[in-house]
Amino acid sequence: MKEIPSNKQIRRANKEDVPALVAMLADDPLGMKREDYQTPLPQSYYQAYERINQDPNQQLMVVEHESGQIMGMLQLTFIPYLTYQGGIRAQIEGVRIAKPFRGRGVGEQLVRWAIDRAREEEAHLVQLTTDKKRPEALRFYEKLGFRASHEGMKLHFT
Amino acid sequence: MKEIPSNKQIRRANKEDVPALVAMLADDPLGMKREDYQTPLPQSYYQAYERINQDPNQQLMVVEHESGQIMGMLQLTFIPYLTYQGGIRAQIEGVRIAKPFRGRGVGEQLVRWAIDRAREEEAHLVQLTTDKKRPEALRFYEKLGFRASHEGMKLHFT
Repeated sequence: MKEIPSNKQIRRANKEDVPALVAMLADDPLGMKREDYQTPLPQSYYQAYERINQDPNQQLMVVEHESGQIMGMLQLTFIPYLTYQGGIRAQIEGVRIAKPFRGRGVGEQLVRWAIDRAREEEAHLVQLTTDKKRPEALRFYEKLGFRASHEGMKLHFT
Repeated sequence: MKEIPSNKQIRRANKEDVPALVAMLADDPLGMKREDYQTPLPQSYYQAYERINQDPNQQLMVVEHESGQIMGMLQLTFIPYLTYQGGIRAQIEGVRIAKPFRGRGVGEQLVRWAIDRAREEEAHLVQLTTDKKRPEALRFYEKLGFRASHEGMKLHFT
């Protein structure tokens, strides 16, 4: 696994990280409405972790501080399509940075790692959607080279 | 496989369908720039078809007319995430309708089929991105219940 500068390491999430990851997902104005962070954690999170972990197209990654704390997370998915002459796409989802570590470039390192992985995998593009209620996230991704060329449409069942 | 009204059938794409599917992908102002429809078809399309077909999270679907002609296509992907208490998302991509069959509700039937499948799979949402250069597609998806709540961001390597 690639290392990023100095005292941080990007690695695959393991089962023991799951509570810290859910805490991060819940610690957000949008996330707090849809997550259920409690002790013990609902089994559905562990089941999802196993499903992600067993799927070769999924990489659930964390950035770990040398102290052992989880600073951030991201899920990278590779999807094969017929379009673009049968290429694969890389998709980024669930980017979160723990509050004490925000504003230090951790998110940028993580997303740049994902872009590099996508290149290695010979994906022809990297895509993601970002909520229009998060204008600062839009600017963040634009700085990294993403263009908001598409509408991101959702139909929620629950 | 579910049938849709009268003389049409929605089924999984098979290998023999691939040339017709690529012809559809190429027959579009955006698609013609990025596809390579020729006889024989580049092997990369068949390789992508095999990769899609072997992945249990992918369903590449076609609508077939009783005459045997392919009227439309769509790819449905299920992605497991930690978000939403460990739910899965359904994602729609590559929706195309062959020119002679446009304006007859084929696309609507196909997308409604995908929404129904997502419900059966207990996905918590269905998502897709649509190019801002296709305003009529935006209205089409809004009519089906999708909301353009997100920006769809892309970073192209090629």
